[in-house]
Amino acid sequence: MRTTRAYGAQGSEKELTLRTIERRDPRLDDVAVRVTYCGVCHSDLSALHAHAADGDGLLVPGHEFVGEVVAVGDAVTRFAVGDQVAVGNIVDSCGTCAMCRAGQENFCAEFPTLTYGGRDRHDGSTTLGGYSGEYVVRENFVYHRPAHLDPAAVAPLLCAGVTVWEPLRRWAAGPGMTVGVAGLGGLGHLAVRLAAALGARVVVLTRTPGKADDARALGADDVVVTTDDTDLARAAGTIDLLIDTISARHDLGPLLRLVALDGTLVSLGWLGPVSLETPDLLIGRKSLASAGSGGRPRTQELLDFCGERGITADVEVLPSAQVATALRRLAANDVRYRFVLDLSDLSAA
Amino acid sequence: MRTTRAYGAQGSEKELTLRTIERRDPRLDDVAVRVTYCGVCHSDLSALHAHAADGDGLLVPGHEFVGEVVAVGDAVTRFAVGDQVAVGNIVDSCGTCAMCRAGQENFCAEFPTLTYGGRDRHDGSTTLGGYSGEYVVRENFVYHRPAHLDPAAVAPLLCAGVTVWEPLRRWAAGPGMTVGVAGLGGLGHLAVRLAAALGARVVVLTRTPGKADDARALGADDVVVTTDDTDLARAAGTIDLLIDTISARHDLGPLLRLVALDGTLVSLGWLGPVSLETPDLLIGRKSLASAGSGGRPRTQELLDFCGERGITADVEVLPSAQVATALRRLAANDVRYRFVLDLSDLSAA
Repeated sequence: MRTTRAYGAQGSEKELTLRTIERRDPRLDDVAVRVTYCGVCHSDLSALHAHAADGDGLLVPGHEFVGEVVAVGDAVTRFAVGDQVAVGNIVDSCGTCAMCRAGQENFCAEFPTLTYGGRDRHDGSTTLGGYSGEYVVRENFVYHRPAHLDPAAVAPLLCAGVTVWEPLRRWAAGPGMTVGVAGLGGLGHLAVRLAAALGARVVVLTRTPGKADDARALGADDVVVTTDDTDLARAAGTIDLLIDTISARHDLGPLLRLVALDGTLVSLGWLGPVSLETPDLLIGRKSLASAGSGGRPRTQELLDFCGERGITADVEVLPSAQVATALRRLAANDVRYRFVLDLSDLSAA
Repeated sequence: MRTTRAYGAQGSEKELTLRTIERRDPRLDDVAVRVTYCGVCHSDLSALHAHAADGDGLLVPGHEFVGEVVAVGDAVTRFAVGDQVAVGNIVDSCGTCAMCRAGQENFCAEFPTLTYGGRDRHDGSTTLGGYSGEYVVRENFVYHRPAHLDPAAVAPLLCAGVTVWEPLRRWAAGPGMTVGVAGLGGLGHLAVRLAAALGARVVVLTRTPGKADDARALGADDVVVTTDDTDLARAAGTIDLLIDTISARHDLGPLLRLVALDGTLVSLGWLGPVSLETPDLLIGRKSLASAGSGGRPRTQELLDFCGERGITADVEVLPSAQVATALRRLAANDVRYRFVLDLSDLSAA
């Protein structure tokens, strides 16, 4: 066993505290990664709340991180010590179901092993996440990252980034297409930047008129204020692909009415039951879809694309000791657009 | 004014009776069609029930009919007396909105003028349908039909046919794709035949094992009995495009679980509110869509395709005087697969 330090919550603890955890010695196909930066995802906050209520075992959040390879198993072929790498929210999957064979390990029929709070497929242990000095992971779920990009700003690509990249690619965002982005947070700001880089016309939908300048700076061609009926009427039926990143429950009808003939509304943020009126889909033959996370091929594709285009997330980097501040401000939506923890001190000590 | 005979219900009458109605003299761009055969659509039954409850004015159903041109307005260019034609469920639209310009008059922003129970855009009169000896209609909403095909069996193509043809074409049914058809009635049997003709692998989903032979005779490659868990498990995640023609309210979850990665479930039959669990869409990045009726370009395209391939509906032709029998048996689902009324006696008299 190896040890490292990590921010975790034991049992019903409501706060993360620094503690020592164990990591397995690398198996034949494992890579040990010294974690340098880890993004703070909204789901980390949800997981902490759920874990405190449940009160079982140790929770270490963190599922979008970057670092450097510090050890490799004997059968590892794609990585060597010193490689600059990244890891996302999945660290294993069955590898044999139709989804895995299609490179969509995120939809694995046996459910993928999550980076934290998952169950290791070999020893049955609970996975502990990237708010830590080191992570040991199968090489298949490690990605090469563009070393010339700011590593802290690359980290959020691994969850927020790939979650918007997959639908942009699935629905072929590009020149001649109008992509709408609802919600301008961690996912939304990357959706704007990536859709613009793919050549699409980008429209940001926001309740807040004050976000218009930010939206345009990210690459939006237009901004629709969804509390303004004139704006809504102007945009009705114009959006070919609407990426909905709003995480709170909301009525899909007004968004569907902005979608163009044969267009699609993709819901990324909301995981509960959905209800809608058939005519909102029927008139204009529209589609409602949902997507989440990403598979291995498109994760690497995203990192390569961002390397070529110089695209990263807008981040606010905090020392790992300020993790509680990051979580508190995230809960208040006080972030533009992603907190990233600097964890380099944990492994250095 | 011209007069003809028609089967209609006045006020709260629950039965259709033969009566004399007026048709307008052809306007400059009108065509007068002697109706020979008119399909009996499920919506005719719903309209009759709704009209009896409402009790306002005269209802003459019928919106999928064939016949022969007997008079043309002075500005008509595409039709001449004697032409073999067909008319569907839309007889006018605004012509200027984005949907009309895209050839999707069925989604006209000002709502299309329906073939019966609609409001004429010029004189404000209520449109009276095809259960009649003659119909007067703008030439833009008249279609040339393949004269070598059985006219009675062509009539259902104009509503049931185009309603399934549009999604088959929108989602590019063809070789290498698996198309599922849920419900084997007027729409469903044509969906099977058309999808097979387009080169897709076709799977019929039915609650009734006894329909398997019929399904295969129509062109299905496989039949999944949806009350059989083994069948459902075998078909899970295999259908790229699932055309759901079931008109009663039903749970979409079991159907969505049959849809393949990046596949689509298109609901045609149900017009009420829809509710579903996000994971049923998310796992496999599936889409839910709805569609209804068709626009002018694809209606003519369907008729041309059917002419080339010799495709028609399976119909049971009844003399117009037996319209009550047709409606009663339709209500009991006792039809394979579409009733068609022979109306030639109405105009001949």
